[in-house]
Amino acid sequence: MTRAKDTLQQELTPARRRFLGTAAAAGLAGVGLAACSDKPANAPAAKASAPALGNPGEHGNAAHLKPGELDSYYGLWSGGHTGDMRVLGLPSGREITRIPVFVPDALVGWGITNESKKIMGTKADGSLKYTVADTHHVHASYKDGNYDGRYAWINDKINSRIGRIRLDHFVCDKITELPNVQGFHGIFPDKRDPVDPKINYTTRVFCGAEFSIPLPNAATDDGTKYRSMFTCVDAETMEVRWQVLIDGNCDLTATSYDGKLAATNQYNVEMGVKYEDMMSAERDACLFFNIARIEEAVKAGKFKTVGTSKVPVVDGTREANKDPKTALTAYVSVPKNPHGVNASPDGKYFICAGKLSPTGTVIELAKVLDYFDGKLAKPDEAIVAEVELGLGPLHTAFDGRGNAYTTLFLDSQVVKWNVEAAIKFHKGDKNAKYVVDRIDVQYQPGHLNASQSETAAADGKYLAVGCKFSKDRFLPVGPLHPENEQLIDISGDKMVLMADHPVRGEPHDFIIFKRELLKPKQVYSLDDSPIAVKDAKESGVTRNGKKVTVKMTSLAPAFSMREFKVKKGDEVTLILTNLDKVEDLTHGFAIPNYNVNFIVNPQETKSVTFVADKPGVFWCYCTHFCHALHLEMRSRMIVEA
Amino acid sequence: MTRAKDTLQQELTPARRRFLGTAAAAGLAGVGLAACSDKPANAPAAKASAPALGNPGEHGNAAHLKPGELDSYYGLWSGGHTGDMRVLGLPSGREITRIPVFVPDALVGWGITNESKKIMGTKADGSLKYTVADTHHVHASYKDGNYDGRYAWINDKINSRIGRIRLDHFVCDKITELPNVQGFHGIFPDKRDPVDPKINYTTRVFCGAEFSIPLPNAATDDGTKYRSMFTCVDAETMEVRWQVLIDGNCDLTATSYDGKLAATNQYNVEMGVKYEDMMSAERDACLFFNIARIEEAVKAGKFKTVGTSKVPVVDGTREANKDPKTALTAYVSVPKNPHGVNASPDGKYFICAGKLSPTGTVIELAKVLDYFDGKLAKPDEAIVAEVELGLGPLHTAFDGRGNAYTTLFLDSQVVKWNVEAAIKFHKGDKNAKYVVDRIDVQYQPGHLNASQSETAAADGKYLAVGCKFSKDRFLPVGPLHPENEQLIDISGDKMVLMADHPVRGEPHDFIIFKRELLKPKQVYSLDDSPIAVKDAKESGVTRNGKKVTVKMTSLAPAFSMREFKVKKGDEVTLILTNLDKVEDLTHGFAIPNYNVNFIVNPQETKSVTFVADKPGVFWCYCTHFCHALHLEMRSRMIVEA
Repeated sequence: MTRAKDTLQQELTPARRRFLGTAAAAGLAGVGLAACSDKPANAPAAKASAPALGNPGEHGNAAHLKPGELDSYYGLWSGGHTGDMRVLGLPSGREITRIPVFVPDALVGWGITNESKKIMGTKADGSLKYTVADTHHVHASYKDGNYDGRYAWINDKINSRIGRIRLDHFVCDKITELPNVQGFHGIFPDKRDPVDPKINYTTRVFCGAEFSIPLPNAATDDGTKYRSMFTCVDAETMEVRWQVLIDGNCDLTATSYDGKLAATNQYNVEMGVKYEDMMSAERDACLFFNIARIEEAVKAGKFKTVGTSKVPVVDGTREANKDPKTALTAYVSVPKNPHGVNASPDGKYFICAGKLSPTGTVIELAKVLDYFDGKLAKPDEAIVAEVELGLGPLHTAFDGRGNAYTTLFLDSQVVKWNVEAAIKFHKGDKNAKYVVDRIDVQYQPGHLNASQSETAAADGKYLAVGCKFSKDRFLPVGPLHPENEQLIDISGDKMVLMADHPVRGEPHDFIIFKRELLKPKQVYSLDDSPIAVKDAKESGVTRNGKKVTVKMTSLAPAFSMREFKVKKGDEVTLILTNLDKVEDLTHGFAIPNYNVNFIVNPQETKSVTFVADKPGVFWCYCTHFCHALHLEMRSRMIVEA
Repeated sequence: MTRAKDTLQQELTPARRRFLGTAAAAGLAGVGLAACSDKPANAPAAKASAPALGNPGEHGNAAHLKPGELDSYYGLWSGGHTGDMRVLGLPSGREITRIPVFVPDALVGWGITNESKKIMGTKADGSLKYTVADTHHVHASYKDGNYDGRYAWINDKINSRIGRIRLDHFVCDKITELPNVQGFHGIFPDKRDPVDPKINYTTRVFCGAEFSIPLPNAATDDGTKYRSMFTCVDAETMEVRWQVLIDGNCDLTATSYDGKLAATNQYNVEMGVKYEDMMSAERDACLFFNIARIEEAVKAGKFKTVGTSKVPVVDGTREANKDPKTALTAYVSVPKNPHGVNASPDGKYFICAGKLSPTGTVIELAKVLDYFDGKLAKPDEAIVAEVELGLGPLHTAFDGRGNAYTTLFLDSQVVKWNVEAAIKFHKGDKNAKYVVDRIDVQYQPGHLNASQSETAAADGKYLAVGCKFSKDRFLPVGPLHPENEQLIDISGDKMVLMADHPVRGEPHDFIIFKRELLKPKQVYSLDDSPIAVKDAKESGVTRNGKKVTVKMTSLAPAFSMREFKVKKGDEVTLILTNLDKVEDLTHGFAIPNYNVNFIVNPQETKSVTFVADKPGVFWCYCTHFCHALHLEMRSRMIVEA
């Protein structure tokens, strides 16, 4: 503990590479270097390119749009513990909106309205099942290898939930809680069907579970009995299609462009329950799934179920998959506690970053398929490069010009390296200079991604880097520091730092794509809701015993009913339709002391249900600025004793 | 209704001043102009300065810091329905952090930890009393007419709560729910004591209630029986000191630099319950409170109480305050539904913006004091100017050089005008050109504020404008548009638009001040919590019947207990102290399926209490990136059946 602590303090000192000169680093550097296959002369871990600040005039200003100028890229970001999806514009780095998913949102009424509570899930008493989340990864639906603008998905690691966002309305429409797993972390949609060539778009989302648990969960403290699973969710129905029981655990997830393979990197093949155990092996793995074979096995009934869950679970353990020709899975070894597996945009490779090893491992997908065809003796023969990149490699992005960009957490750098040169170097060409450039980032980078990086249309323009520590980069705001998202211009030979953006902890992964790929709707249709109050004349209060329905409309600057009466003890369902049609003309509706607030966008309908347990006059007011008479836009709820 | 609707549509059309040429505007323009006292030739409402885009090279780049460069100003912003306080850096406009106040926050565990639940308030069953809010105004504590960096306050309009933020730790430490009122809107701290010259700092916070209700609240639908109140909260104890029963309602609030006066603008002197009634009178009011006299009255026992509340309520109605020499209040009339009252930094004036009248009204505070001394016949004699500014004036900021800046909601402009010139013009000098400049903003501005504007140290450098509609200024993100906060350079003669910033609805007011005024702490002291686990050796599980206490510490990369056992049905209180001392080294703690997540900053302690109602193994994991072995930083909660 003491040594690890000292190490971290060293990592956080301004001279952040000082520890390279020490023997400390809790054995990380030492162990990592020992696990490194190739140690090129051209990969100096301690030397960075000149600070990018030198030339902000030319490059730095690319991030600075003139007022009124639109961004050219969308970014979809995991919101971290806010449980929402952040929508950014790039290159400005401005956050345009946040889409509530797993955690209540008091602006739109997420977790307050009946419609959102149904999506989020409630307990028997009608209260929300969960109000916390930990989102990490955002990925969007594909068609022909590029985003098609239909859906995006986001994970909640705390409660193993996957949420789907409709990219027409920018709202969450489905949330699914995965059975039999804990610590659902990596997530990735497939890019086409592995068998049917007509299905050239996303129909599955793959989910990796990081923690192993007793199956079914019980109070067993013997960690050797714990297991983890890899899960497939149907992209349309959002139901769980199947799960794969595995050895080791799942971390990040990647899918191939041909639809045939999915993979997860594994940092705990040891299946340890303490961090010392989890880092004891020199090599962990990248675990590949043969999707077509798994679905054949499910169809053939070769599965079991766990506990009360009805989800088919196939056996993906090493023992059950020794024959490559029938194997559902293939375990390719990669060095020590890898973090991150990413698919290159040319469709050829998955790249794993070593984390506790200073290496990147390049796995050729054609060879993985060869293995499943029985043409390779061992899965590890699919490794075509394993090269030193620097200390603490975590995630990799691509520019579509053959270069990869990997975050180095311990070095606080991004390293740009050429994949084909790395393969040559690995083959023995020690003159192949695969490291192209390095840039310091501020500080300790986790995820990074480049514009269009995870599509066949990677365009190598911008790179965003999520730095976990900001330290001295922003005005101090107390003990909780923001993180620092940095934007880098990668259009030239040298990377150039463009801008720092503070961000509330803790977003992780994100995707960046051209604005032309989305065509959002700006106004709802009244028909979007089955309970819409389509005409102000339908407004009124109807009673069925103690159940009361209040129908109301809004049209600036008034609600259709200036007052309405209910009785103490009534269960009131209030339905509000916004009849305003003008884009951007949203109204809010709050009831003091009744914990009700929500908005209705143009032509949108929402409802809330509550018990009128407090007598008196309650001024329901518009909470979203709408008109010069916004303050005067009110209705009175009179609760008779 | 139909006409109002048409008007709004016109307001939102790109040719936003088209309605000036029509007879429509729901009577607003017409009525407003009728109520205007002065109609100068030099105040052309329909003509704006040239678009500021013309010269972004010189001025626009002031907002564009180089990466790593620090902002020179802090901004404290109301977060809107997120119920938090936003902290911005200026001139970059970057949001550095958000401080949770009224609404739960799943990152820090606000509304989850025992400490935060105590501040927020709970129901009998231990659940939170409220989870929604509508924050509007942020103001900070003063000393000698400038901010002293101790506290900031923020209001919740939905549930009439006031929250206080400690500006050393950037956390909320107190929330008070105001009795006897609804729609608590305006808020302002005093700047010194009205009597004791040694108390040259803030000791009171004044709160205006916008809605009139039955007192005590009951199901009375006769609106003539409803009343509103003005409330004084103690800045240190956060207890309610006293309330004033008034005629009309309260909107915004202002305080004088000498501590003697507070005021609220009133838009509903009619005490109407429908918007047509609320806008029927040609003049409403700015209501002044004589603080010393009110406190004398309270001390003398000249008060009543309302319902179960014990707060002293003095009578501030017109009828009870006819004699200026004993009056607690003075009603100065201002035109039609004013919105906003602001104190000029020279300490001389309060300025009200007309909203439905195109005017600004300048009230001289020395004359208001004269009125209370019996030297003026009528409060209205304190009005020294009432001049035309443009359509829909809402709020006013100052540059410390004698100029005021007022938002024009309907004109979508900011108008810069000289206060002394306006006074001359009002006195009859029709050559006094008080309108100095106008600038278009995008679109429909509400609040604005300038750097140091509400202090004696107003420096006239930057002006931020909160535009309620963004329309076409950002990439589309579905039906809910962001608002647009614009930054304007006011250091020169002409205002220059620097940058657009999208923001999630719906922030309102904010303050901007020099960074030197704050000295935040970056690390907690273990002594800040009475329940701190100061040594890892204190870790353990202790049982008292079904009540179980779990004491734990964190030190990267491990929690002090790798596992702990409890029994199904136990009421578990888990106390976690972060023993890491390094700045920025925060850990998180999540328990899957138990709806627990919170963070502990360096040397901070927090606790949670929950019933262990689900048996099995639950991986408690660090949710805030801390170390290369962050993913491996876990503890196991084993709940035995």
